[in-house]
Amino acid sequence: MTYCIAINTDQGLVFCSDSRTNAGFDNISIYQKTHTFTWPGERVFALLSAGNLGTTQAVVKQLRYDIEQQAPVNLYSVPTLLGAADYVASISTAIQKQHMARDMAHTNFEATFILGGQIGSARPETLLIYPQGNYIHESNAHPFLQIGEIKYGKPILDRLIRRDTALVDAARCALVSINSTTRSNLTVGPPIDLLVYARDSLNFERRMLLEEDDPFAKQLAEAWNRALVEAVHNLPSFPWES
Amino acid sequence: MTYCIAINTDQGLVFCSDSRTNAGFDNISIYQKTHTFTWPGERVFALLSAGNLGTTQAVVKQLRYDIEQQAPVNLYSVPTLLGAADYVASISTAIQKQHMARDMAHTNFEATFILGGQIGSARPETLLIYPQGNYIHESNAHPFLQIGEIKYGKPILDRLIRRDTALVDAARCALVSINSTTRSNLTVGPPIDLLVYARDSLNFERRMLLEEDDPFAKQLAEAWNRALVEAVHNLPSFPWES
Repeated sequence: MTYCIAINTDQGLVFCSDSRTNAGFDNISIYQKTHTFTWPGERVFALLSAGNLGTTQAVVKQLRYDIEQQAPVNLYSVPTLLGAADYVASISTAIQKQHMARDMAHTNFEATFILGGQIGSARPETLLIYPQGNYIHESNAHPFLQIGEIKYGKPILDRLIRRDTALVDAARCALVSINSTTRSNLTVGPPIDLLVYARDSLNFERRMLLEEDDPFAKQLAEAWNRALVEAVHNLPSFPWES
Repeated sequence: MTYCIAINTDQGLVFCSDSRTNAGFDNISIYQKTHTFTWPGERVFALLSAGNLGTTQAVVKQLRYDIEQQAPVNLYSVPTLLGAADYVASISTAIQKQHMARDMAHTNFEATFILGGQIGSARPETLLIYPQGNYIHESNAHPFLQIGEIKYGKPILDRLIRRDTALVDAARCALVSINSTTRSNLTVGPPIDLLVYARDSLNFERRMLLEEDDPFAKQLAEAWNRALVEAVHNLPSFPWES
């Protein structure tokens, strides 16, 4: 399984992903799921991936190949984020169809992506691309997107993330959301990839890869645990406690 | 859907359940899912139910009927909590088989239960009874059980619940776990049924039914939201913040 988050705030974007893949319970590997495409000063994209690893790897390879070959449509040529999402969707569905045509075992080749970034002075955007090739963007009422094992880490995002949440708080919130998920579900695991994009910077300058024993990650997890214990203890008293 | 929790601490038991049932998206009703069986000073049981409402109602009815009729095996006669779980499991599977025999549409008649309580001076216990009729109990490493829509509310329990957690804190934690779930998933909803059992009291004296607009429930949800915002804000700073 996988868990990836993208948050779109007034101050910029947060991308966060785990790195565990599993093909069955006893076949577990580490693959990073955040892929970046950067033209400093011009445009930046981050692509987060979940689903069939053969499909997601093939999609990323094709995206890079199209850039190298200066294909008529590529991530450097698309005029908008929506156009970029449509282009990624067309590659994803083409690869799935190709693999399905060879399949003899009703294999699930589906992959889901989150694509986010900024092109020039346009507003930063995030889009969730479904395996079927359609896509949705985040909204003012719900300024984050999730793919993979989303339930464990959703409550903290639902409670805290607004458009006007400070970018650093959104990043901390994403780490807590992932940490909650890795603690409660073994199919999601470190290292945790965190990418924080300041709006209009048109470059990815703030990225952390947090291994299981990373001091910052441990400090954060311990501080969060302490805060929650205290928060529960300080909640209103029951009538029978007085 | 449904969400029910049972927590077994050194000081006693906590039971918490939502009250939303749905047969399809547009057929939503309110049914309480915590059923109590009490012989003050002698024995107490709480039964939490999830799954097919026809099955869970029939099981509860049969349990009460067996008590009234003084059947050879009933909740007043069983010598242990394990025996009680086995008895509930036998009724549940018998009812499922009866309904399946009449079925013409591959209907899912499955039901899952949590049974908890105390018999005389024996240690309080909680057991999760699967639709298949087998059961598991909680453990020192994992002193809580959940049924239904369990993922949203699991991280807070994983982080906080230990055997030595104070009973009132365990109860507050259960309410937070349910509140997180009702906020993030529409199939789980109020009123919230909270039952707190002090070990060796052999009676159910502390029960709250919290409607959506209950002042205590609102106060608790707001206090929790405020505490989380503050907790995220007070987490360790990123290297680039200094």
